[in-house]
Amino acid sequence: MTEVQHKGRVAIVGTGLVGSGWAIVFARAGYPVALYDAVPGAAGRALALIGERLIDLQKAGLTGDPAPIQARIMVASSLTEALANAIYVQESVFERVDVKTELMREIDAVVGKDTLIGSSSSGIGASHFTEHVACRARCLVAHPVNPPYLAPIVELVPAPWTAPETVQAVRRLMEDVGQSPVEMTREAEGFILNRLQGVLLMEAWRLVEQGLATAEDIDKTVSQGLGLRWAFMGPFETIDLNAPGGIADYATRLGGLYQRIAASTSEHRVWDAELIAKVEAQRREHLAAADLPSRGAWRDRRLMALARHVQQQDAADLRADE
Amino acid sequence: MTEVQHKGRVAIVGTGLVGSGWAIVFARAGYPVALYDAVPGAAGRALALIGERLIDLQKAGLTGDPAPIQARIMVASSLTEALANAIYVQESVFERVDVKTELMREIDAVVGKDTLIGSSSSGIGASHFTEHVACRARCLVAHPVNPPYLAPIVELVPAPWTAPETVQAVRRLMEDVGQSPVEMTREAEGFILNRLQGVLLMEAWRLVEQGLATAEDIDKTVSQGLGLRWAFMGPFETIDLNAPGGIADYATRLGGLYQRIAASTSEHRVWDAELIAKVEAQRREHLAAADLPSRGAWRDRRLMALARHVQQQDAADLRADE
Repeated sequence: MTEVQHKGRVAIVGTGLVGSGWAIVFARAGYPVALYDAVPGAAGRALALIGERLIDLQKAGLTGDPAPIQARIMVASSLTEALANAIYVQESVFERVDVKTELMREIDAVVGKDTLIGSSSSGIGASHFTEHVACRARCLVAHPVNPPYLAPIVELVPAPWTAPETVQAVRRLMEDVGQSPVEMTREAEGFILNRLQGVLLMEAWRLVEQGLATAEDIDKTVSQGLGLRWAFMGPFETIDLNAPGGIADYATRLGGLYQRIAASTSEHRVWDAELIAKVEAQRREHLAAADLPSRGAWRDRRLMALARHVQQQDAADLRADE
Repeated sequence: MTEVQHKGRVAIVGTGLVGSGWAIVFARAGYPVALYDAVPGAAGRALALIGERLIDLQKAGLTGDPAPIQARIMVASSLTEALANAIYVQESVFERVDVKTELMREIDAVVGKDTLIGSSSSGIGASHFTEHVACRARCLVAHPVNPPYLAPIVELVPAPWTAPETVQAVRRLMEDVGQSPVEMTREAEGFILNRLQGVLLMEAWRLVEQGLATAEDIDKTVSQGLGLRWAFMGPFETIDLNAPGGIADYATRLGGLYQRIAASTSEHRVWDAELIAKVEAQRREHLAAADLPSRGAWRDRRLMALARHVQQQDAADLRADE
């Protein structure tokens, strides 16, 4: 197994929203990218969409000229062609164990012996679909947030048979393309990001179920309160700075409150059909189903503006440190 | 009971970090503010600190000339003087039931018959300290995020005896001063904000306890992933926009994953002394205890810049809608 080579080719297998986002990340950083999708024509359509996204990113001040970036991305006509000479494969197909298992068998048959393979799986560990392939020591999960070219986090999660060198080489690759890798020591369903999102959503559903607050007010509490800190500090740094003596001091002051909250959150039904219908109705009052795509476009604009804001602030922090 | 009168006097009782922040919110919006603190000299010191904060806010482009704002804030020499002609009292003393109960008795003895009283309590419901006062129908919790002049959310939480008109009048006052009120229908420990923060922190502690990830990587997963959405959308809007068919579609796709995550999160010790010491040690490697204040100042600068960013984006959204 060799190190990931600088500017070697990256293969994207599965060219939906996630795969297309990854293509932008690697091509923007100077890597040649090969797109492959089993659905005929899908990779070509993805390339056209990537071109539109690159123009949006340039307008938002997040990337330069789209032309040389797009020029690094080619459509491969077969899996074999996509994987030829690839240093890394980013698998981004549908999130189902049988689909990923079958694809891994196909990849295993043609992949080079030094190529590393990351899966975009958002919750299923690589152990569920790589056990029986010869390349399994070179497989892991590399889970992005959508879209990866705006949210830098990538969760690296090894299967029990993933080689430690695989994790370290993919970490270096991710850092080299400007992403921000985090590591789990072993698999846990949902990884870090969706476990944290999951428990918060669970409590949000409970508050609605118990009639304590509306979905709209819960959303405001996050977007105009908690989320304003979490956009640049994590939960531990937030509480570390929220008591004069740091996190241990905070735990002394507020640990009891949080224990009592935890004790009162058990045994309620959530993610339940009736409750989902109730919140769906509340959401549709604020946003008609027909307006979901335009609101999605709004979300993308705001994410781009926020990404640029964060970049500028980080750069200013760096200058202040010099 | 009358409506909250426009630009009537607001009394701040307890002039620590929270009370001082409230003074800026009300004075910035044109309300005369009286500061009172039982500790001799404390209100005067708060006024000096408020002056410094107003200069910071002006530099960040968030407020205009500090002078007229500061001129609206006066130090009262007694509780009686602070409450004279006040339309609203924002109680911001130490978060302990006995302390708040005693203060409410003192307020009850001198408060005007139309004055409304909001408590900054971050987790204790008003029922725990207002049961035996005559003014209890005019009392509720109005819990801010720190600092309230940067994070607009205010949680309004009625006690069982709070008059509905009290909630509505305080809501209008909060909207008038530019805050963003949300309402609970009844008390629940921790209210909305700290319940949501609490469950996320609980899972964060568990991930560290189980050795699945470091506190640093958990922080990065939020600040460079989840938090980038939650800074301008709440958790329900986030998932509503994260599946083509909206929130019900999302629940169909991912409800099962979140149910499995929930099933795997029970019965671990968290907020436990040994675990706190472990995360404290991880944090102190990144940030020495002596550097907590300077990092707190960094946090305040970043919050100000983010608040300005959000204001500009909201204004651009409004212009686009016109």
